[in-house]
Amino acid sequence: MTPYEELEERLRELSHLGHARAILNWDEAAMMPRGGGDVRGESLAVLAAISHQRLTAPKIQALLDQAEDGDQQLGPWQRANVRVMRRSQQRASAVPESLVRASQIASTRCEQAWRLARDNEDWSAVSPLLEEVVRLTIEQAAALGENISLPPYDALLDGYEPEARAAQVTHLFDDLKTFLPDFLERVLERQEDPVPVRGPFRSGEQYALGEKMMRAVGFDFDRGRLDVSHHPFCGGVPDDTRITTRYDKDDFLGSLMAVLHETGHALYEQGLPTDWRHQPVGEALGMAVHESQSLFMEMQVARSFAFMKFAAPIIREAFSADGNDPAWSTENLHRHTIRVRRDYIRVGADEVTYPLHVILRFELEQALISGDLTVGDIPGAWDELMTRYLGLSTRDNLKDGCMQDVHWFAGLFGYFPTYSLGALTAAQLFDAASRANPDLAEQVEAGEFHSLIEWLRQEIHCRGRLQSVEDLLVDVTGEPLDTRFFKAHLERRYLVD
Amino acid sequence: MTPYEELEERLRELSHLGHARAILNWDEAAMMPRGGGDVRGESLAVLAAISHQRLTAPKIQALLDQAEDGDQQLGPWQRANVRVMRRSQQRASAVPESLVRASQIASTRCEQAWRLARDNEDWSAVSPLLEEVVRLTIEQAAALGENISLPPYDALLDGYEPEARAAQVTHLFDDLKTFLPDFLERVLERQEDPVPVRGPFRSGEQYALGEKMMRAVGFDFDRGRLDVSHHPFCGGVPDDTRITTRYDKDDFLGSLMAVLHETGHALYEQGLPTDWRHQPVGEALGMAVHESQSLFMEMQVARSFAFMKFAAPIIREAFSADGNDPAWSTENLHRHTIRVRRDYIRVGADEVTYPLHVILRFELEQALISGDLTVGDIPGAWDELMTRYLGLSTRDNLKDGCMQDVHWFAGLFGYFPTYSLGALTAAQLFDAASRANPDLAEQVEAGEFHSLIEWLRQEIHCRGRLQSVEDLLVDVTGEPLDTRFFKAHLERRYLVD
Repeated sequence: MTPYEELEERLRELSHLGHARAILNWDEAAMMPRGGGDVRGESLAVLAAISHQRLTAPKIQALLDQAEDGDQQLGPWQRANVRVMRRSQQRASAVPESLVRASQIASTRCEQAWRLARDNEDWSAVSPLLEEVVRLTIEQAAALGENISLPPYDALLDGYEPEARAAQVTHLFDDLKTFLPDFLERVLERQEDPVPVRGPFRSGEQYALGEKMMRAVGFDFDRGRLDVSHHPFCGGVPDDTRITTRYDKDDFLGSLMAVLHETGHALYEQGLPTDWRHQPVGEALGMAVHESQSLFMEMQVARSFAFMKFAAPIIREAFSADGNDPAWSTENLHRHTIRVRRDYIRVGADEVTYPLHVILRFELEQALISGDLTVGDIPGAWDELMTRYLGLSTRDNLKDGCMQDVHWFAGLFGYFPTYSLGALTAAQLFDAASRANPDLAEQVEAGEFHSLIEWLRQEIHCRGRLQSVEDLLVDVTGEPLDTRFFKAHLERRYLVD
Repeated sequence: MTPYEELEERLRELSHLGHARAILNWDEAAMMPRGGGDVRGESLAVLAAISHQRLTAPKIQALLDQAEDGDQQLGPWQRANVRVMRRSQQRASAVPESLVRASQIASTRCEQAWRLARDNEDWSAVSPLLEEVVRLTIEQAAALGENISLPPYDALLDGYEPEARAAQVTHLFDDLKTFLPDFLERVLERQEDPVPVRGPFRSGEQYALGEKMMRAVGFDFDRGRLDVSHHPFCGGVPDDTRITTRYDKDDFLGSLMAVLHETGHALYEQGLPTDWRHQPVGEALGMAVHESQSLFMEMQVARSFAFMKFAAPIIREAFSADGNDPAWSTENLHRHTIRVRRDYIRVGADEVTYPLHVILRFELEQALISGDLTVGDIPGAWDELMTRYLGLSTRDNLKDGCMQDVHWFAGLFGYFPTYSLGALTAAQLFDAASRANPDLAEQVEAGEFHSLIEWLRQEIHCRGRLQSVEDLLVDVTGEPLDTRFFKAHLERRYLVD
């Protein structure tokens, strides 16, 4: 066996451990009874520790050294595989195991406290725990950054989105910060209120509708499922991709759009290159590209008027609704899916205001990691930026302010920007898809998604991690990430149409 | 840390790996889409290999040697824990890993071929694969037997039911072989046909009824679930115990009895000693005792007339049935649950004929392991014994004959006898429970299961593996396993009542 082959074998085993973790995580959110939580946490921790031990074993380091030796006869996929392996191994080895463990314990404790404290807006119950999480995250970011030669915040960001850097993100976000507030004002002035669509809508009927839509856009139910969880997500593995939603009896469109969002994630997973299953190079590129796939499906496709022309008759049939009722007209249903409003909550925000929620978090978390902001400063700083960007104060409203998201309390810093990088990427990719296929809108309107999905398969999904994100974008769209596609998309949808 | 404490820590980690395997196995049967099967198999194999490596590590052997040293200050639970650990370690170490792996591969291949071949009764497609499985099982049994000083078949049996021996089982089964055929004849002569209960019965209503009954007998839904799978089973772990059933729209009683059977298993798991979670001594004693708990609930409790007096009104309400309709009378519903018939299929056999199905398999599998019977002889030998014990020929009917059960094709030899040992044990325990609680029948009739479950908790569940099976039985019932309780139970139910 060559060093490269031995690496593949070891990484395949790590992937199978990852399979177990993915299914157990899905189960925790979608199936597990409350009493199973403590043991599940311990079981997941054991699996994480075993994976970490195996990835950081000295033997892997030695094999990587040998495989990187120029004498090896490796093809481009194999070379990319080695590159991605090295990256994971470096990141895993950079932080001492004692610190990884301490961070995990602190995050778990803080996240649990947050779940209880959020409803009572009991900031003082959770802030000392968050201080500990931030302290340990700073320590991790420093160790990581030193090892991979990056500033601390970039070292964290790079963990979610390989090769993304705060400076580049700031540049893109500054442009949005200039554009969005005025644009939002114009949209709000112009927007008409849709006629309410009255429920109740039964879960069973909502499920059936969601399933039908998933099938229409190409989700493979032989290799996946649709279930219910508190927050919608996409989990599982490429050959067993499991998405979830939740059902609100008064609002089926919210759940349906969430289903289509998660279906975008799932199509990416199901479309990853089968020849490279269980190898790092066969995995998804990063969080921003993943989010681009969900937002491509949700924002670019499913919230378009063309899509609603296809979907509206199916929706009316699902709920035995009357097409002559103005509430159920195609136009009115579409109006519901593109409604814009200033609101406190990031989850469920429309695509116009969403980046402002993200930019606020991106700015605050950089300041937290650099030490310019303390945990004690968060509520005031949050209120200040919300007022500046969205004209909404969160003073004395922490539940709808800095206590709304799990991320920081769970130790996730550097994750937020990937949501909006995903939105920008989705718009840029959709522009390329439309140029490649002039009949796209007609096809969507006719419920023919085959060529669109084939394009995504070919251009994104089946490339796995063969290229860097930037190389992929240049290859597919002709240029690196640029905000103008997103801005043009917003203008077309909210001001022109 | 003392050697004993280090052992506990290592075994706790193994238990957490076991948690992952248990949930993944449940998921495979209850949730997984078809396409996820291949990867799931690989992931489970990796987890099994890691567990095996850890259990057979030289360090464990050394720690066990030290912990067994008489100088150690260990309490009775700790001593029992060391005893059970040693047992597992010895069994795991006895068979070379190459043979374990070869057996696993052969069994998986054979089981998959069996699934396809069964419906076409294509014996020739599966018999060469079964020959390989038998050959490797004989090799394993020899290696195992040598290491733990047991004859080959006993070495296999002991894996499912610690300390059970073929000689003792033969002694018990010979008694049943004498008793049952005549007894069956008398029951069949005396039995009246029940009035059919007409469906269809919707799955949702059947689920709701099953859930209600599970709650009534003490199943804790904070630590468990009820779902659907092809074959009913009890899986998961003590703090997250998951049972399954299947719904037949024409027969709700079959599913309900299966639910109560699996609930008996689940109550055992949920009742295991919390102080010894994640240690071997805190686990269930063996397959026979496990089966005794399911049969205690199903055969001794749920199929009694007292239970039907409690259940019938709830059943009628569940299906909006009329109590004056003779089909739905308490007597008629009960008659359905205790119907006896000669049939080909073990699964779903009544409690009178069930042991004859088991004895046939017990006799054939011993002959297979000793080499007295070849795989080629199975169809003929099966036909001969079915004709002798149940008066039914399976010539040219392999689907209802030797191809009906998965066990041998999956490499499970020595498992079958535990079903009937469980039935005998259940009858003996129920006799003791009735002596301890003279109001038992009245309580069951009133739907008050608290004292009965408390008795099981105290006498069986919360003892874990502190004692041997025989010591437990003597302790709780006053004597070792004896067939007379089971025979007396059958006579009372089928000839006297």
